[in-house]
Amino acid sequence: MSLLVVGSVALDSVETPFGIKEDVLGGSAAFFATAASFFTPVQMLAVVGEDFPQAHLDFLRSRSVDISGVSQEKGRTFRWKGRYGWQLNEAETLDTQLNVFQSFAPKLSELHRDAQYVMLGNIHPELQAQVVDQVKAPKLVAADTMNFWINGSRAELIKTLARVNLLFVNDTEARQLSGEHNILRAARAILAMGPERLVIKRGEYGALLVEKDQVFACPAMPLADVFDPTGAGDTFAGGFMAMLATAKQVDSDVLRRAMVMGSVMASFAVEKFSLERLKEISRADLHARFSEFKRLTHFDDLPMLDA
Amino acid sequence: MSLLVVGSVALDSVETPFGIKEDVLGGSAAFFATAASFFTPVQMLAVVGEDFPQAHLDFLRSRSVDISGVSQEKGRTFRWKGRYGWQLNEAETLDTQLNVFQSFAPKLSELHRDAQYVMLGNIHPELQAQVVDQVKAPKLVAADTMNFWINGSRAELIKTLARVNLLFVNDTEARQLSGEHNILRAARAILAMGPERLVIKRGEYGALLVEKDQVFACPAMPLADVFDPTGAGDTFAGGFMAMLATAKQVDSDVLRRAMVMGSVMASFAVEKFSLERLKEISRADLHARFSEFKRLTHFDDLPMLDA
Repeated sequence: MSLLVVGSVALDSVETPFGIKEDVLGGSAAFFATAASFFTPVQMLAVVGEDFPQAHLDFLRSRSVDISGVSQEKGRTFRWKGRYGWQLNEAETLDTQLNVFQSFAPKLSELHRDAQYVMLGNIHPELQAQVVDQVKAPKLVAADTMNFWINGSRAELIKTLARVNLLFVNDTEARQLSGEHNILRAARAILAMGPERLVIKRGEYGALLVEKDQVFACPAMPLADVFDPTGAGDTFAGGFMAMLATAKQVDSDVLRRAMVMGSVMASFAVEKFSLERLKEISRADLHARFSEFKRLTHFDDLPMLDA
Repeated sequence: MSLLVVGSVALDSVETPFGIKEDVLGGSAAFFATAASFFTPVQMLAVVGEDFPQAHLDFLRSRSVDISGVSQEKGRTFRWKGRYGWQLNEAETLDTQLNVFQSFAPKLSELHRDAQYVMLGNIHPELQAQVVDQVKAPKLVAADTMNFWINGSRAELIKTLARVNLLFVNDTEARQLSGEHNILRAARAILAMGPERLVIKRGEYGALLVEKDQVFACPAMPLADVFDPTGAGDTFAGGFMAMLATAKQVDSDVLRRAMVMGSVMASFAVEKFSLERLKEISRADLHARFSEFKRLTHFDDLPMLDA
């Protein structure tokens, strides 16, 4: 099934306690597409500048990513610079240069308008809505967002949410968006805004999938070495959406497996800078770690006791 | 199998955003024993003052708790006063009056020295060691501890840990004890101090069981109403240890089920003040919520894909 992602492609400069990398491939669409490409072809809609290295475009093409929707515009590529402390939970943004991304207006080709699974990366909610306008008959539209839009473009975001089937947020964003501290109440308040499903990412604590009548909790794989969390959420979404796009239908079982594959993908992504780790691994590695998640979470039924 | 708990019995005064309760039954041994008593008889070693209500002793006796080791001493009962904010994660201690607990020196009867499963509640590590000295041939000794002992009685704690098979700590304590921020590295450093197994409690995020060669992650049940977290950790330990004490042998499968039953027990405990909720429920309720944990965490294997 066709999977379309709209989002940023960036050149990231990242500082962690383990080192510094400058101008490496980043951006929500790049992380997402690379992760999803293990399982399904991906169509990418994004913008880069004149300075964007050809090698990165070649890499995406080598992953069967359709980059016909990635336009190269006059000016510099979107740049993000951030730093992580030992806690590795949240990045401190040191610098953001929107550059060509500032005037990004997603325009879908005829082919892309047929997309069945759509991922609206973390961009202005009005742009997200414009993408939904252009897609003809999607089976599922998912969106990501962030505190910047929740606080600064709340009305537009609420409008977009009404047109979205699934939302990815982290726990802080869920609380900000809903005004509820309790995470389950926060989730239910967000479901009432439109999405039928909500994924709440909790960093090292894992992720929750909340539907109207059930909750699924997937822990994160405890890792002794977390190197660079940049892109963990986007690779999660990429693994997740690839599972949906390759399934016969989207039901609760598929969504649960998608949560685990998202967690698998993120657990690899954080092991090295940028997309370095994802470039090294194979689908067999993903399957092996999926099995590790089984061992991490599996428990037997209680033996019969007199109740 | 005989299960002995040594710890505090207290009169708690608790303030949460949902109300205030004064002088209610609390203390690590009281929470632990009540939780464990759903599945197995418990022997309790503790001290209370002259002011301790007979009704609480009657209650414990009604749960088949052997309180022959609970001595009533001249003076007042241990009192703890605490407050929780909306986050409900950590209590702010407003007042601690050790009272008769100050001179607590656990002395085991001949019967109690035969105990096979021993829970060393959160008391001075030297007192914990004295209990281990007195037990003849325990199958498994578990201990709880806290930042107060980690920082203030580190040498004694390290000595006690070398004699303990399983340790319960929360994530902050694990980091303090080990000096490692990464939770897996922290766990491994603590295992190197003696215990073969470590349970790391993470509040609303669940708990981890770390053994030498495997990790098990159990999420907490997302609850829309968390009323009073006091005693959550002790009821967790009570449900956990009861599963071990009633199993034919302690293996990895039993430990995993114990983690879930601990989580089940804690999920009930926080729904009302003190032991109120645990007093209402039956073993059937525990089994039903155990099944809910299955639904919360279960996922199927991946369908076959070409690797």
